[in-house]
Formats: sequence, C-alpha cells, structure tokens
Amino acid sequence: MGASFRHDARSFKEKDVSGLSEEDLSGLSRLPLFSNLSDGCLRKVADESRIVRYQRSDVLFGQGETADWLHILIEGQVSLAGSVRNSEETVVDILKSGEAFIVAAVLTGKPYLMSAKALATSKVLLLPAAKLLNDLREYPELALAMLSCLAGHFRTLVTEVKDLKLKSASQRLALYLMSLTPRREGSAILHLPHNKILIAGRVGVRPETLSRVFFSLKKEGVVSEHQTVAITDLKRLAAFCHEGAEII
Amino acid sequence: MGASFRHDARSFKEKDVSGLSEEDLSGLSRLPLFSNLSDGCLRKVADESRIVRYQRSDVLFGQGETADWLHILIEGQVSLAGSVRNSEETVVDILKSGEAFIVAAVLTGKPYLMSAKALATSKVLLLPAAKLLNDLREYPELALAMLSCLAGHFRTLVTEVKDLKLKSASQRLALYLMSLTPRREGSAILHLPHNKILIAGRVGVRPETLSRVFFSLKKEGVVSEHQTVAITDLKRLAAFCHEGAEII
Repeated sequence: MGASFRHDARSFKEKDVSGLSEEDLSGLSRLPLFSNLSDGCLRKVADESRIVRYQRSDVLFGQGETADWLHILIEGQVSLAGSVRNSEETVVDILKSGEAFIVAAVLTGKPYLMSAKALATSKVLLLPAAKLLNDLREYPELALAMLSCLAGHFRTLVTEVKDLKLKSASQRLALYLMSLTPRREGSAILHLPHNKILIAGRVGVRPETLSRVFFSLKKEGVVSEHQTVAITDLKRLAAFCHEGAEII
Repeated sequence: MGASFRHDARSFKEKDVSGLSEEDLSGLSRLPLFSNLSDGCLRKVADESRIVRYQRSDVLFGQGETADWLHILIEGQVSLAGSVRNSEETVVDILKSGEAFIVAAVLTGKPYLMSAKALATSKVLLLPAAKLLNDLREYPELALAMLSCLAGHFRTLVTEVKDLKLKSASQRLALYLMSLTPRREGSAILHLPHNKILIAGRVGVRPETLSRVFFSLKKEGVVSEHQTVAITDLKRLAAFCHEGAEII
C-alpha cells in the first residue's frame, strides 16, 4: 500500500485494503452508479480505487473531516450521522449496498457534514476525490451517472424534510416500521434491525421519547415487545402515515 | 411563442414570456451555475431558454406535476413548499436570485416533490428538460456545473435535516432570525420579510405555535412586535443556537 493511500491522518490497516479483483470489477458494473459506464471508464475508476473492509462499529470518517474520498458501499450496512456542538448524534441515513456517499462533500471540496459508521461488516470502494474530479472531466458519462445518483439522494432528503415538518412522530415511526416489510396488506411480525438509539435518530425523536411514540401506535394496531413488533393491519397503518402520498 | 413552449396543461401568458436579450445573456454568465461555461455552451443554453415573468403569488408549478423545465431564478424571490395529503403546506426553501431549482426532479424525470410560488415579482429562466439532458451530454462543463449546484443544495438540505432533528424550535427560529442580518455582534432591529405562516414553515413549527416559540426567545434577548424583531445581543443568540457549529 503506497503512502498516498492514507485516510486523512488515519492510515488504513494494510490487511483490510486491497485492489479490485476481476470479480469486484464485474460486481461494480452492476451498481446503479456504474451500470451505464463504458468499459474504459469503469476500468479507470477501478484502477484508481481500493476496496476497504470495515468491521461493525468501525468509523469510516468523522464529521468535519476533509472529504478526500468518494465512498461506495459494496456490501454491508453503513449509517450516516450528524451532530451539533454539545448534543447527541442523529442518524440521517442508513445506507444499503450499492450506494455512493457522500458525493456532495467530495464534489464541493468541503468537510463532511456527517460521520459514517459501519453497522455490520462492510466492504467499501474508495475512490480518491482528486482522481474522481479529473475523471468527471474526462468521462461525461460518469458526470451524468453522478448527477443522477446525487439527484436521487436529494429527493430522499426532500421527502425527509417534508416528513419531519408535516408528519407527527408517530406517523414517522409508522413509516419506518412499514419500510421494514415489503408487504402492504394483512398483518406482519417484524424484528427491529437497529437499536433504539439508531431508530430514534432515524425517525427524528429523542431516544427517551421513543417508547412513548411506540405506545401511541398501539391504537393503530402496533404491538411491540423488545425487538419484535407486530402490525395487525398494514393497510390501516399505511393510511395513518399517508404512506406514498407525498406527491399527490 | 411556439406551441412547444407550454408549461404542462397551462400555457404561459404570451406577454410574460420572452427570449433572452444580450443583457440577459451577460447576466447569465454571472450566475454561479453558468459562470464557468464556454461561450458556445452558454449561448446554446440561452437560445433554448425563455424568460418568464411572474407576479407575486403566481404558482410556477405544482407538486406532483411533471418536471418539464429547469427553472433558474434571475430576479425576485420564490418559495418551495411541500404538502402531504390532508395537511397544510410547509415551506422547504426560500430561493434567492441565481439559484436553479428543482434540478433533481428534472434529472430524474420524476414529478416535482414541491410546488413553487413567487413571493415577489420574479424573472425566471426556463430551460426545457429534454434539451438540458442533451446539453449535459454535449457539454461536460455543464454537467460539472450542475453537479456542483446540486451538491450545494444537497448540503443545505443535510443541514436542515440535522437542525430539525437536533435543534429545538427556539434554536431553529433563532437561526432563521440570524439569517436576516449579516451582523454578528451588538444588537439588531429586523423587519420580518415573510408572513407568520411562511416563517413557521421555514422554521418547521406549526403556525399556531410560532408565537409561543417567539415568546421562548425572550429570555435569549429577542423582543418582537408585529413584523419587527429586536435582538439585544447577536453573539449571545448565535451561541444559543450553535450557529456555524454544524461541522465542528
């Protein structure tokens, strides 16, 4: 590993970093961000990138650090959290495989507004920001792919701002619970995949009030005990939180 | 005006639409979005665009409509608001001159997540979405400019989500008040430029609770009467709302 492949002051543990295998490369071409790129562009990006493996609870970067790397989650789960002085952190987003983050900081050359932490063993592609900026000039197709990716994330955030301003905490918790199942009618038994602090941040309530918000959903047919939640009528809960009604 | 220049089902009033004058063109080259474009690219965008003039309270487009046009505010003030079924609207953003909106809907070809309304007499550049998408392929410099613009808006929204989740309503109102003056020490007398409903939406509280939030700022040295607000100590108020502390 060259001295140039350092993550701010923190260098990666050598064993956790590797170049891309042919298998990684074919995996990349299936990611939404890279699926429409020419072979030449894809290979260039791959050559410039490294794969880093993180363990659960590893911090990928901290809020306020310089955005030297574009991160793309290949496998695993990563949370993005923000904080302000003297206050607790809040989870802004929980990323799934295939998502690039945090594109905006890398493009503006400004510090990260959020920190990133692995919620599970994760495999992340890191592309140096300086190389990305050159590649965007050389390959307009990459710039278009990045535009489309950023536009999607932007719309997710607009929906989140609207939910925070227009919906109650119970409605937001209901939306979060609905996001855990693909089913849309009948009943469902769910296992909460995140701890209470993470869920509170995601929903936008203080951790100490989450139980009260869960309790308020009882009258909408939601019963919870520890990490298990039963929804007696998915249609009724969807109506309660206006699910999918954002753009009507 | 050709039949092709229609805004969804609604066609513009002919008198309010015009092509770009040489003066408009030189104005465009000073906008952040267009400041680094070659003459050829700028002229092409200008040729494809129209200037539309809106009166105060005119609706530019509604939530849920197809995003057929990239809008760029040349002069005036425009609010972006969102709503969910059976609920009031909330103001997500108030745009100033030079800002492009809503880039993300145009790029993804999805419906607008917000509606736009003129808060004052406004002059808006409209570029057809289909032509923009072609121009992005032809002019990588335009794609880079759009990426940078979208990245900036994305960061604004991240900050808004963090403020909504981590700050109290009084802190958010204090931040809004601070945004109305460039001064950062001593005292200030401000005239509120928006009505209470708009301010409530911007701050993320219900209109009926705004007075209570104003009242709670009294102990931080904020006195208000009708549209006039006096801040007795700007430094103290900045400390109260952790202004500028987002990325520390």
